[in-house]
Amino acid sequence: MNPKIGDKVRIIKRDREFSGIIMPNETNNIVIKLDNGYNVGIKKEGIKEIKIIEKYNPKKAKGEKKMKKNKNLPNISILHTGGTIASKVDYRTGGVVARFTPEEILELFPELKDIANIDSRLLENMWTEDFRFKNFTTIANAILKEIKNGADGIIITQGTDFMCICAAILAFMLQNLPIPVILTGAQRSSDRGSSDAAMNLICAAEFIKQSDYKGVAVCMHKTQDDKICHILPPTKSRKMHSSRRDAFRAINTPPIAEVDYEKRKIKIIDKKEYKRWQKVERFEPRTKMQEKAGLIKTHPNMFPEQFLAFKGFKGLIIEGSGLGHAPIDAPNKDCDINKKNLDAIRKLVKDGTIIAMTTQTIYGSVQMHVYSKGIDLVKENIIQAKMLPETALVKLAWLLGNYKDKEKIKKLMQKNLVGELFDRIEEDTFLI
Amino acid sequence: MNPKIGDKVRIIKRDREFSGIIMPNETNNIVIKLDNGYNVGIKKEGIKEIKIIEKYNPKKAKGEKKMKKNKNLPNISILHTGGTIASKVDYRTGGVVARFTPEEILELFPELKDIANIDSRLLENMWTEDFRFKNFTTIANAILKEIKNGADGIIITQGTDFMCICAAILAFMLQNLPIPVILTGAQRSSDRGSSDAAMNLICAAEFIKQSDYKGVAVCMHKTQDDKICHILPPTKSRKMHSSRRDAFRAINTPPIAEVDYEKRKIKIIDKKEYKRWQKVERFEPRTKMQEKAGLIKTHPNMFPEQFLAFKGFKGLIIEGSGLGHAPIDAPNKDCDINKKNLDAIRKLVKDGTIIAMTTQTIYGSVQMHVYSKGIDLVKENIIQAKMLPETALVKLAWLLGNYKDKEKIKKLMQKNLVGELFDRIEEDTFLI
Repeated sequence: MNPKIGDKVRIIKRDREFSGIIMPNETNNIVIKLDNGYNVGIKKEGIKEIKIIEKYNPKKAKGEKKMKKNKNLPNISILHTGGTIASKVDYRTGGVVARFTPEEILELFPELKDIANIDSRLLENMWTEDFRFKNFTTIANAILKEIKNGADGIIITQGTDFMCICAAILAFMLQNLPIPVILTGAQRSSDRGSSDAAMNLICAAEFIKQSDYKGVAVCMHKTQDDKICHILPPTKSRKMHSSRRDAFRAINTPPIAEVDYEKRKIKIIDKKEYKRWQKVERFEPRTKMQEKAGLIKTHPNMFPEQFLAFKGFKGLIIEGSGLGHAPIDAPNKDCDINKKNLDAIRKLVKDGTIIAMTTQTIYGSVQMHVYSKGIDLVKENIIQAKMLPETALVKLAWLLGNYKDKEKIKKLMQKNLVGELFDRIEEDTFLI
Repeated sequence: MNPKIGDKVRIIKRDREFSGIIMPNETNNIVIKLDNGYNVGIKKEGIKEIKIIEKYNPKKAKGEKKMKKNKNLPNISILHTGGTIASKVDYRTGGVVARFTPEEILELFPELKDIANIDSRLLENMWTEDFRFKNFTTIANAILKEIKNGADGIIITQGTDFMCICAAILAFMLQNLPIPVILTGAQRSSDRGSSDAAMNLICAAEFIKQSDYKGVAVCMHKTQDDKICHILPPTKSRKMHSSRRDAFRAINTPPIAEVDYEKRKIKIIDKKEYKRWQKVERFEPRTKMQEKAGLIKTHPNMFPEQFLAFKGFKGLIIEGSGLGHAPIDAPNKDCDINKKNLDAIRKLVKDGTIIAMTTQTIYGSVQMHVYSKGIDLVKENIIQAKMLPETALVKLAWLLGNYKDKEKIKKLMQKNLVGELFDRIEEDTFLI
């Protein structure tokens, strides 16, 4: 009798015994989800016996009975928006997930129900690179709805590529949030033995339960092993590796807190930053975004048409080099075209585009008064955005969406609204 | 008698004595360059005596007498191209440098003459962000001339913003270089007490003298203090901080070597990479570049006009997200415009633009077979460029400049030519 995906089995191999639920996988091994939530891959060679303990009954799992609430536990809503954490997670059918019910989530990550009363629903099913500003507004509005319905905290599960951009947008939109909204995801899909999904979700839930944080943050692995998650600031974090579990880093600043997965303990790291998110002033969500805002990264040998692509845009972030420089000077005839780049920038400014400068070094910040090049750009009405380029993009789009006065927008762009400014660069956080 | 800039003085302050040359500075302190090449700032309070040992005589310094060559020392040519290392360095006149003679260089960095016979000339005086491909060709041709004239090694001093891009271009242009060509610069200008210029230059010279490296590399500070310089690979390095002395990092790979400034000793770190640069096959320089090659960084909410700005370009590097993704799907109506991004990319490909994908995570690499999004992009004829986005840009421009067959260019784009591919990612080099 061959066990099928979803069946609960006991596998005896040499002198070891494993029991868990059969998961789909594309290798020649058998992958089962253990009771503790971990997946293990077992080579078929040497297996003595596979015993089916409980046949999978999809009808039973589909029963949409309401979960009973435990009054001593916080109410956490999980809003799913897609991404690796949700991909191939529906191992019952073998396909990509279509929807989540609270029961399905608890089945995948059973420890969650000891932490909180979980309510869960699918908001979108998309990769973050496909998100447009409208989609972020949808998430913000869904958060507002959950707050109205009494959620004590919200977890957003999401693709990881632009998760930090989503965190930044939500931080600007939902200033003075009365509850924690923690974004998390996975670098390995939930049906893989090496998935980081369970730990990230559980650490996010523990942070919501144990802290009095009020605001947006990102919860992802601190290191490659399954020991500690970082709680990262919403506007100063970045995906710094394409594939590692610990790809996410706070930039120019320490992480806000850590969550020890085994001990289920939280530890505040950046007390000053944490303090910012403990107090709540008047909650006035502003969820509009200006569509026509873009970002251009500079490189040697640019042409004016690259800048002129943003004709008609209301806002443009230049990801310059070093302290905030761009190819606009022509000290010799071989680089004559650079003058046309300056003309293009001037044309955009004249037509009303607000342009702000950031740096592609990622670490450090723009300082446009150091070199003549920076000073020249400031003279051209390019403003300094002492923040991550991606944060600058969404801040400018958000300001343009919610304020009319251009001078006010320029002023606010340079003011610290939600901790986005690199006005306090922690030197020992560089590349650690 | 007030000492003037350029005068050699002895300063007695309390129980200490300093002697050196008066440097210009904008503080209230006196800054002098000590005999060992370091600059020190001395507070005026408490100074007992300032004695002029030797009045500065600009006429004497301008004398262009040929330096005598020491046959036991290597011949190093320093080619200056501008940047912070050359800015305000002419403390004799107080202005920005106009030209360097061998004598002036040796005056600024006297230790150099113990290491090598130095020949020095000004090639350009510009910031790297203004460099166009033509300017890099000028540098390559100047290197070829120095090799003909018998240089045993070349140091290129340069602005730091795009120094690594210059290193990558030269590595592609000058494959199988018979001598070392080391790029260096400074994060603090040479007239400042905290300048890193002297140590970077001296370490570059020591590396040329003590190693049998043949090829291009970057020499910059390993840490913030003046102890060790890193020798970094030409195609896998990046300026990762806007202002720190140790801003430069090898990405996904260790540095090639270290140079201990005090002990004047070199140590090979990455033996495998070093080996690549010990052997020389036939030296066939190819210094052409295709002008019409560009780079676009993706972000949420992109518009097709951003891609269409590259209409008529021969090559385009997309700096995608994660494993190599771009906003081309529309899973819901709010992100419908993404389909037009795909149309724009298709149009470029149809018109003959070679498009390659890199990732903005910087660390890690594209892996376009993991997710459907990557697979879809490969189907659209987007090729994988497993290297830094900036390296991919200059590699593609160089291939387009020197080869005609498009299929060959695409193949070579994915082949390791000078160690640029991230085919061997050293996990323990992530953010260290």
